[in-house]
Amino acid sequence: MDARRWLMGRITEAGLTAEIDGIGNVYGWDRQAKRKVLSGSHLETQNRSGWLDGAMGVIYALEAARSIRENPSLKGLGVDVAAFCDEEGHFISYLGSRSLVGDLSEAEMDSLVNRETGQPLRDALSAAGLAGLPRHRLAAKDYVAYVEGHIEQGNTLENKGATLGIVSAIVGNWQYEIEVLGQQNHAGSTRMAQRRDAGLELVRLLGAIDARFPALVTPDTVWTTGKIVLDPGAKSIVPGKATALFQFRDVDERLLTRLGVELEDILKEANANGRCQITATRISMNRPALMDAKLQQSITNTAQQRYPGASISMPSGAGHDGLWLSTVLPTAMLFVPSIGGISHHWSEDTCDDDITRGAEVFTASVVDMLREPD
Amino acid sequence: MDARRWLMGRITEAGLTAEIDGIGNVYGWDRQAKRKVLSGSHLETQNRSGWLDGAMGVIYALEAARSIRENPSLKGLGVDVAAFCDEEGHFISYLGSRSLVGDLSEAEMDSLVNRETGQPLRDALSAAGLAGLPRHRLAAKDYVAYVEGHIEQGNTLENKGATLGIVSAIVGNWQYEIEVLGQQNHAGSTRMAQRRDAGLELVRLLGAIDARFPALVTPDTVWTTGKIVLDPGAKSIVPGKATALFQFRDVDERLLTRLGVELEDILKEANANGRCQITATRISMNRPALMDAKLQQSITNTAQQRYPGASISMPSGAGHDGLWLSTVLPTAMLFVPSIGGISHHWSEDTCDDDITRGAEVFTASVVDMLREPD
Repeated sequence: MDARRWLMGRITEAGLTAEIDGIGNVYGWDRQAKRKVLSGSHLETQNRSGWLDGAMGVIYALEAARSIRENPSLKGLGVDVAAFCDEEGHFISYLGSRSLVGDLSEAEMDSLVNRETGQPLRDALSAAGLAGLPRHRLAAKDYVAYVEGHIEQGNTLENKGATLGIVSAIVGNWQYEIEVLGQQNHAGSTRMAQRRDAGLELVRLLGAIDARFPALVTPDTVWTTGKIVLDPGAKSIVPGKATALFQFRDVDERLLTRLGVELEDILKEANANGRCQITATRISMNRPALMDAKLQQSITNTAQQRYPGASISMPSGAGHDGLWLSTVLPTAMLFVPSIGGISHHWSEDTCDDDITRGAEVFTASVVDMLREPD
Repeated sequence: MDARRWLMGRITEAGLTAEIDGIGNVYGWDRQAKRKVLSGSHLETQNRSGWLDGAMGVIYALEAARSIRENPSLKGLGVDVAAFCDEEGHFISYLGSRSLVGDLSEAEMDSLVNRETGQPLRDALSAAGLAGLPRHRLAAKDYVAYVEGHIEQGNTLENKGATLGIVSAIVGNWQYEIEVLGQQNHAGSTRMAQRRDAGLELVRLLGAIDARFPALVTPDTVWTTGKIVLDPGAKSIVPGKATALFQFRDVDERLLTRLGVELEDILKEANANGRCQITATRISMNRPALMDAKLQQSITNTAQQRYPGASISMPSGAGHDGLWLSTVLPTAMLFVPSIGGISHHWSEDTCDDDITRGAEVFTASVVDMLREPD
């Protein structure tokens, strides 16, 4: 909330009208512009993570809004700024952008809890003073496009010697909670032949995924076990329960489906051969999203004019708020490099020159989009 | 501390002198007896675990002390009762019994912290009002033997249709903390080929143990991964660090050594072939302990007279305070069955008949040991 209040101050300084809505999204409305782009990203990132993931894109949007507004030759054109809450899914992924595009019901809000603390979303909104505020709903007709700047969070740009990435598509992401139920027991007196060790069964399952997924994928497909919990998790107890968060991502929806089927097969075999009961619940299933071809061309042309040879076209392995905005508006994204490809870690960083060059190309591209006829 | 105070009340009711010492052990001293057995077990068990693990053995000791003391024909014979703190290792395994036999230095106490909460042992002792109390040190010459009753915590007795287990040896237990260091990163934008995924490397390491240990062991050897933590442990982050608690147990010290060497070999190969840095720190190394042959015979004879065919000789897969007492006194242990072999879980239980039959044989055996000439 401190960051939101800080941002609202900056929005007001830029001459826009600041607003926070009932889901915690912050907006900066340009009340003078007639023809507008919506631009933004998110403020929160993963816990104990870096300073650029999300926040940089919000500042790009604000900088584009401010500089276009200050330029008399661009009168009537403008940018509305959005800082979407909880892109990372502390409650649920893309909470704020889903709310704006109309994909989040009041009933779903009632059911959401913080994944770490268990605090209900409604309580968190009340504690933040946001309970009862209306939630803003996007009117697609008000905008030419949605455009988002972001750090790459990988090292494709670095590896290719490029400093600007024009996103062709955002990958789809299927996420699962895997649960293994066995029998908790004493780790000294329970013979191996009698055990139903949920932790060991999970290790075997993840080993099977590790062995079998590589034959099905492309070099760009990724799959990750981000969390493992053994219950009760003590040194001298055979775990009676084990859970894991597992996900896979690709731009090709058919490949995602193929991997989902493979995971089900691996589970079936593990349940048939092992002594535990394993389930995998799909907790989210984000479809791949193609970026708008005309908008990509606009950014490509702008980048090529100002920094010839500095830009490449690339898919985004990470999901972004643009994924949801692309369901209602023509959408584009611009990436700048992450040093060493590192993100979702406090050491995440980008060279100052890359940040400012990105902001320049971003704003110029938005101007280009605003100038084009419909 | 509530349980300790309750126990001290019962000790006093039985006519013994109750004392709590500077490590949190509770004692019941029989000041009248000239020839004595020391008997006891522990009060705490694993968190959220059962009601019999440890506590039953303390009550067996108290019942033996009480009934022998009340029997005029046994004048001069007696039992000192001990309830050892923290057998399970919330701070360190066998804290109380190690203190009693003189294996715990003040310097080591300074260094110990609660494995769950990080609270220093010194602070916990202060908070419990135990700081500054002297720690009792065993005088081996005062006792004929140490005898401990306990639930089996496995299902060997059930499988063999026996209700009394006379322990031949307590297995040795080597425990390790395994740590894998990789590179924390974004789970969408970091390609598989570029990852240094600490969690995946740990899964592969545990898979190698699962594949290779069975060829080296006996049906009684056990090995367990009780805890796994991925850091930071979020769904969309490639874990930069992974830790696990791993242990193996056997009655044969040469086999333990062989498994320790195998673990080192697996680690070396993982470090050579993988992209993470893996270490395994041995956090404890309890040697196997043989129970005293003469005391085993005494319990066997007693059991055979009262319940013919009900007893068997068996090793203990679990470690017990008797492990440490056996370093200074002839030691014996008597097991009663665990229903379904379940222990270290709240559903842990034993039939009432088995508990009372065990108490009867336990006390009769202690009387037999006390009556024997030195």
